[in-house]
Amino acid sequence: MSSAIPEPVTKLVEAFSRLPGVGPKTASRLTYYLLRAPDEYSLGLAQALGNLKAQTRFCSVCFNITVADPCPICSSRGRDAATLAVVEEPLDLMAIERTGVYQGRYHVLHGAISPVEGIGPDDLKIRELVARVEQGQAVEVIIATNPGMEGDATAMYLQRELAGSRVKVTRLARGLPTGGDLEYVDSITLMRALEGRSEL
Amino acid sequence: MSSAIPEPVTKLVEAFSRLPGVGPKTASRLTYYLLRAPDEYSLGLAQALGNLKAQTRFCSVCFNITVADPCPICSSRGRDAATLAVVEEPLDLMAIERTGVYQGRYHVLHGAISPVEGIGPDDLKIRELVARVEQGQAVEVIIATNPGMEGDATAMYLQRELAGSRVKVTRLARGLPTGGDLEYVDSITLMRALEGRSEL
Repeated sequence: MSSAIPEPVTKLVEAFSRLPGVGPKTASRLTYYLLRAPDEYSLGLAQALGNLKAQTRFCSVCFNITVADPCPICSSRGRDAATLAVVEEPLDLMAIERTGVYQGRYHVLHGAISPVEGIGPDDLKIRELVARVEQGQAVEVIIATNPGMEGDATAMYLQRELAGSRVKVTRLARGLPTGGDLEYVDSITLMRALEGRSEL
Repeated sequence: MSSAIPEPVTKLVEAFSRLPGVGPKTASRLTYYLLRAPDEYSLGLAQALGNLKAQTRFCSVCFNITVADPCPICSSRGRDAATLAVVEEPLDLMAIERTGVYQGRYHVLHGAISPVEGIGPDDLKIRELVARVEQGQAVEVIIATNPGMEGDATAMYLQRELAGSRVKVTRLARGLPTGGDLEYVDSITLMRALEGRSEL
């Protein structure tokens, strides 16, 4: 069988298989798709991959991904330096940007504390956050880690680390997701919604 | 929002999104995975993509994907030139090779007749198959197109095209898949299994 598959094909199948969520079947399908697609497809993808690391870096202030350092948000005068939203990943930052209502700045931790995966506070950009809060103009730090076990652990850790500083530390509200149905909501979410109920 | 995402990132997300079965969410996830993964990952994938088209071609005899032309199967003396299995795609060829029992050669059509997708006989390697049968040593042509509407239409077309030649034209058996359960088998498969029943 192996002689029937040329090496450049197996090499690409292997490379695709290393991506998260891509199994050998999907990797084969993608490879054979590219074999029949115009050359521009595979070459465009190859070039985009090459440029990804070559042309981007982490912002030295907030650790978001950026071409210019500091990133456009950190260097924008329109963004309020008094508010810092702390997120786990750049994709979380983008989710907040998509709401269009947040005018503050960010700090990207690049992960969450996870004893199971062996990720401790020193593996994240927490020291940099504390230093930034100590030196900076921040008045409020909004902890916007994910609403799960690891995000909660990270939030608790940050809260303790920042307890000595004079910033206000807040966290995103927990409750029912808009458009959801009470019947299908999990008990923990419902419990949080009850705890956080507000007067009308 | 857009200013928050550097161009090399959006470019790669777009390139991934062009792949079949990869939506914008998966494309983002893959891109951010690669941003944090070692450089070798993205560069290895980029190189494999570049090599794919540069180092492979279609075998001029059977149209399988190959580095050397003719391909290892076509140039192997151990493979019986009297039998030709006609498949839609290189992946189908590999599936047959994996059984380890087929000792004949192949012909890859690169698709199936599909009026819906605007794919006619001239878009496939059918003329080349007919020429090969006319000139060649083939005694039997096994039509191994997929067991579906398009594969059936292609099989019928091939049968008519090869009717004038002296080769025996056969097709893969239809029936119950091994390990399947009668209860869950679709009616068309069961109908075919009944039609094709054999005496014990």
